[in-house]
Amino acid sequence: MKKIFTIAASLLIGVTAFAQQALWGGPQVVSPQINEDGTVTFRYQNPKAVKVQLTGDCLPSQKIEVPGFGTFDVPGSVDLKEGPNGIWEYTTPQPVAPEFYNYNFIVDGQKELDLNNVFVNRDIANLTSVLLVPGGHADLYTVKNVPHGAITKQWYYSQKAGFNRRLSVYTPAGYEEGKGKYPVLYVLHGIGGDENAWLEQGRAAQILDNLIAEGKAVPMIVVFTNGNISQEAAPLETSTGYTIPTTALPQTMEGSFETSFPEIVKFIDSHYRTIAKKQSRAVCGLSMGGFHTLYLSLNYPDLFNYSGMFSAAIGVSDTSISPIYQNFDTKLATYFSKKPALLWIGCGNTDFLYKANIEFTKKLSENNFPYTYVETEGGHIWKNWRVYLSEFVPLLFK
Amino acid sequence: MKKIFTIAASLLIGVTAFAQQALWGGPQVVSPQINEDGTVTFRYQNPKAVKVQLTGDCLPSQKIEVPGFGTFDVPGSVDLKEGPNGIWEYTTPQPVAPEFYNYNFIVDGQKELDLNNVFVNRDIANLTSVLLVPGGHADLYTVKNVPHGAITKQWYYSQKAGFNRRLSVYTPAGYEEGKGKYPVLYVLHGIGGDENAWLEQGRAAQILDNLIAEGKAVPMIVVFTNGNISQEAAPLETSTGYTIPTTALPQTMEGSFETSFPEIVKFIDSHYRTIAKKQSRAVCGLSMGGFHTLYLSLNYPDLFNYSGMFSAAIGVSDTSISPIYQNFDTKLATYFSKKPALLWIGCGNTDFLYKANIEFTKKLSENNFPYTYVETEGGHIWKNWRVYLSEFVPLLFK
Repeated sequence: MKKIFTIAASLLIGVTAFAQQALWGGPQVVSPQINEDGTVTFRYQNPKAVKVQLTGDCLPSQKIEVPGFGTFDVPGSVDLKEGPNGIWEYTTPQPVAPEFYNYNFIVDGQKELDLNNVFVNRDIANLTSVLLVPGGHADLYTVKNVPHGAITKQWYYSQKAGFNRRLSVYTPAGYEEGKGKYPVLYVLHGIGGDENAWLEQGRAAQILDNLIAEGKAVPMIVVFTNGNISQEAAPLETSTGYTIPTTALPQTMEGSFETSFPEIVKFIDSHYRTIAKKQSRAVCGLSMGGFHTLYLSLNYPDLFNYSGMFSAAIGVSDTSISPIYQNFDTKLATYFSKKPALLWIGCGNTDFLYKANIEFTKKLSENNFPYTYVETEGGHIWKNWRVYLSEFVPLLFK
Repeated sequence: MKKIFTIAASLLIGVTAFAQQALWGGPQVVSPQINEDGTVTFRYQNPKAVKVQLTGDCLPSQKIEVPGFGTFDVPGSVDLKEGPNGIWEYTTPQPVAPEFYNYNFIVDGQKELDLNNVFVNRDIANLTSVLLVPGGHADLYTVKNVPHGAITKQWYYSQKAGFNRRLSVYTPAGYEEGKGKYPVLYVLHGIGGDENAWLEQGRAAQILDNLIAEGKAVPMIVVFTNGNISQEAAPLETSTGYTIPTTALPQTMEGSFETSFPEIVKFIDSHYRTIAKKQSRAVCGLSMGGFHTLYLSLNYPDLFNYSGMFSAAIGVSDTSISPIYQNFDTKLATYFSKKPALLWIGCGNTDFLYKANIEFTKKLSENNFPYTYVETEGGHIWKNWRVYLSEFVPLLFK
């Protein structure tokens, strides 16, 4: 009797596995594979391919020249070598440093995902395979056996937009069990991003879980807004149907988002157990989100006690188009007269926004306005933004 | 002055766009494209490919014979035709019926995603591109301009497992604003699935939002469990690091999940505003989740008033291995003696579990036990499970 059931169970699994194979093709080879010596092997099975390459930020970068624009670092590429059964392979010559990486294969000139790796991320309109090498600072990006905060995809009605809009909200472990109130950090994305970006590419939930579990950060509520006021939510979550994500959205850096921000704070303060005062409120953001952070801080000097500008997109947009961006020097003086606890500025030394950020810090220094400046290697990349968040969060609400 | 800023803004966007192009390659062509006449065009750019095919459940199915196992319907495939610039194209000869579809390209025999379509789903270990054709019953699967429930990824400590485990919880629109209590539906996944499956492949949040907005279902809390008691969470969300999802997990159909279920109900009843009684509690599940639904209902006859078995995996596993599965007839009689409001059974007429489900309904009829049976076309597929959920939910808590 037992045997019959076992055969039947095999059939259930067998048909499913068979169906996968036949219908969609499950994983054929192991890729990526982190080896014992810390090197990583990438594999791609395709007997008919002529040339298979790997590109990604796990490889040394290469410099490219854009005429009229300057020189930029982009991920390098290497050739895979074909072995038995049409399995192409590349093993890094050196151990790969701990980091959260994105990569693709280029098969006869065509970008492809590593379909043996089910870990795929979308960044704006780009799909990449993901490799997380644990260790060092990247341990913060891993899911550990620690208490986990909850992530809620939450909708609020925006008077400014005239429709429902979506937020992601992190509530720390223990929030549901207790009755206590928590400080709030608002985290803003870059151009083309949305309320998912920091959680997917930014590993923000893991960073928060781990920093709080280690006692390096205080438990806090963290709100990930959607900074594209013309949109309801991330591109795949709206009633407008399928649209390709783009950096060229309307109403991103023309004052609407900053003008609408108080309604988000009001919603959060009325729906979560927050400490609803300046001393317990922080804001930070990357690129466009750093620009938003600056102008939210200046226009609402009584709202945030801590502000973090990560590779902020300052000095690049037409700030004449909204009152939000005008009377800059007066607003800056007012902001500092109210003695915020922290203005934190981080930028990579090859970022195309590096010069603008340095100029801003000079202006602050000339006026004896206090700020913290952290400079890292590299450019306008998620690798830096995850580090900036990891360094900013422990400074808050203490 | 304004001009300088405009140029700088273009530079910001330009570099980003350029970077996409250079680093990862953004969308090159439009695919998929739903045409005005309802046909769909798929495109894939690759000048070096010799043969490009499309496969997916948007194409007529084909029958395949598995020696010793029987005949199975699998998605068909068609050839794309190469046009200018190496852009391969296929337009369906007929309008494509409204549905949530999965598809892939097969390029010289190799499965690939449609990288011009950023909408990708993972089902167990399989990545597919997604096409949602709105209209008809598939309108329930679209995000509409209606009030949206919130989705929370929530962790609870499992005494049975000895570690933290993750749930997905849907709270209906208005939950946060009010103080009222809600009935609870527990929704269970199939073998190889996890707490994300019903929300990603099952479109459950959209179905619930839309049914509630239309007044066809009462507002309810819906809990999506992880039925693999050996795991913390979905494969990419655990502290065990990167693992390839598989249907061959331990502790899936041997009683552990059913034994541990009361701790989930206890957690939900103590953390959400639930109506914590049988009359306001329902359970349903697909395949393995239908099997779990049956044995949860029989072993805890005072827990659920409504049970939904969707293509339930009954009659295929070794039920001698746990007391949960023993004394079936006695438990069945006890269950019905307590007059549950609904036992709902749905199965496709080409499902490999069809015969077992028919036999079960015969057994019920012979004993004059009341049940609702819905038979559809097709097999063991998500298309059916979304329909079953859409039909089951309106019957609850009325």
